[in-house]
Amino acid sequence: MELWYTEEHSKDVRFSIRVDKQLYSGNSEYQKIDVMTSNEFGTFLTLDSLMMLTEKDEFIYHDMIVHVPMATNPKIKKVLVIGGGDGGTVRELTRYDTIEHIDLVEIDKLVVEVCKEFLPQTACKLEDPRVTIHYKDGLRYVRAIENEYDLIIVDSTDPFGPGEGLFTKEFYGNCFKALKEDGILVNQHESPYYENYANSLRRAHERIVEFFPITRVYQAHIPTYPSGYWMFGFASKVYDPVKDLNAEAWNQLGIKTKYYNTNLHKGCFALPNYVKDLLENKNE
Amino acid sequence: MELWYTEEHSKDVRFSIRVDKQLYSGNSEYQKIDVMTSNEFGTFLTLDSLMMLTEKDEFIYHDMIVHVPMATNPKIKKVLVIGGGDGGTVRELTRYDTIEHIDLVEIDKLVVEVCKEFLPQTACKLEDPRVTIHYKDGLRYVRAIENEYDLIIVDSTDPFGPGEGLFTKEFYGNCFKALKEDGILVNQHESPYYENYANSLRRAHERIVEFFPITRVYQAHIPTYPSGYWMFGFASKVYDPVKDLNAEAWNQLGIKTKYYNTNLHKGCFALPNYVKDLLENKNE
Repeated sequence: MELWYTEEHSKDVRFSIRVDKQLYSGNSEYQKIDVMTSNEFGTFLTLDSLMMLTEKDEFIYHDMIVHVPMATNPKIKKVLVIGGGDGGTVRELTRYDTIEHIDLVEIDKLVVEVCKEFLPQTACKLEDPRVTIHYKDGLRYVRAIENEYDLIIVDSTDPFGPGEGLFTKEFYGNCFKALKEDGILVNQHESPYYENYANSLRRAHERIVEFFPITRVYQAHIPTYPSGYWMFGFASKVYDPVKDLNAEAWNQLGIKTKYYNTNLHKGCFALPNYVKDLLENKNE
Repeated sequence: MELWYTEEHSKDVRFSIRVDKQLYSGNSEYQKIDVMTSNEFGTFLTLDSLMMLTEKDEFIYHDMIVHVPMATNPKIKKVLVIGGGDGGTVRELTRYDTIEHIDLVEIDKLVVEVCKEFLPQTACKLEDPRVTIHYKDGLRYVRAIENEYDLIIVDSTDPFGPGEGLFTKEFYGNCFKALKEDGILVNQHESPYYENYANSLRRAHERIVEFFPITRVYQAHIPTYPSGYWMFGFASKVYDPVKDLNAEAWNQLGIKTKYYNTNLHKGCFALPNYVKDLLENKNE
């Protein structure tokens, strides 16, 4: 027997993974949750049939969403993670002794439970004493917060289904308000290659630019995401992620990473022309 | 009816493209040649059922294999291209008025003929008066050459089938000899992600390092290649591609590109740790 997981990266492009076994399949109040194992990628998680993470390459995403802001401002103490119920972002954050508190706001409790059972590689630090999990809607959660966080990480699904509200103007405005005066917002920012994803990226960027004086976009190669080419948004009230990088300070921490390093930190902000044009709306 | 082109990126991973029409299918003395059209990628060429290029994203590969060495040494006058029968590399080279002569050594005449008919987007400059096409084996061609080229670009297929000889120690040694004393060798360098490709990358790098005093590897995101993450090798007798980049001089040329720019030139040499470890043989 052959069992294949197939995802449509566009209506004309499919990416398929040979599956050893489906470990879990269930529906929460919000979405369909599946966990499968594969020879090539190890265990992987999909939500509403879209790839969220694989054991083989989740290090790329989690390195880039955490270490880029942390190396820009090593004084970050209080962090809000929105989404990210798999725990990978929290795991990387807990490697910094200087972080005092992490609020994880995940709408879907079942995602956390499933990841704790089947993906201990990412969920392993959710019990860290510095972590508080709130099973709430991130959009609503940030409405009530003011001047509280040094860093907000939006580790969301795509902008359809439960993740939709996390790509709105209202949400980004509330994130700005919830951040301290030197706060940083980092978000998963979709991809510039296939049209659907590129439109999401452009819209998210346009909205963030309205609130933050400093906005930059950076890239990583994530082979199991559509086109393998993924973006992150960096928005800040005062820090420039390239000029303010303190490479020496970060390297002295001795955090061992498989993807991130401080040279790549500088390099990942150098975008191809077609992506720059997309962000500046020149392609439309 | 649905018609899909499917490529195995590893034995457990498949990438599929919805095909509108198969425009050409034939066998040369060396390989199977196919041309298809698709809604997502336009016309695309496969050799022995492996993706060579698509109209949608060939600009990435050809920008990176040509403009990185040309911006490092703008005085390049005589160029040897090995492989590259589709003409994309030659097209980008002909945009430099300063280049006086280009030898294209392609083993398979049928590839050139098929590309001239079905892929004018890449083959459009093969008739440039500065270009001489030699239908020869690249491995043999370079044996006889000494101290002649400013730049050699190895625009080969993967290291199995007709491309195999272009990944050998003998070949790289002969390229060194065929280059002038400030010559540069650039080669398509496979990918670090799936095991088969990663092994090819590591072996090629080990061999090139034996001959050239300066060797660097740089990256690009090419969505239709396995994992979407592709590498190029830069080897040189004197030039360091980052330190010796003359960004101002290149930008003054006014060459409009969709991928390459001089910031990205510097950024693309900043590799993730797992790739650096692979190149330094630390993963084995």
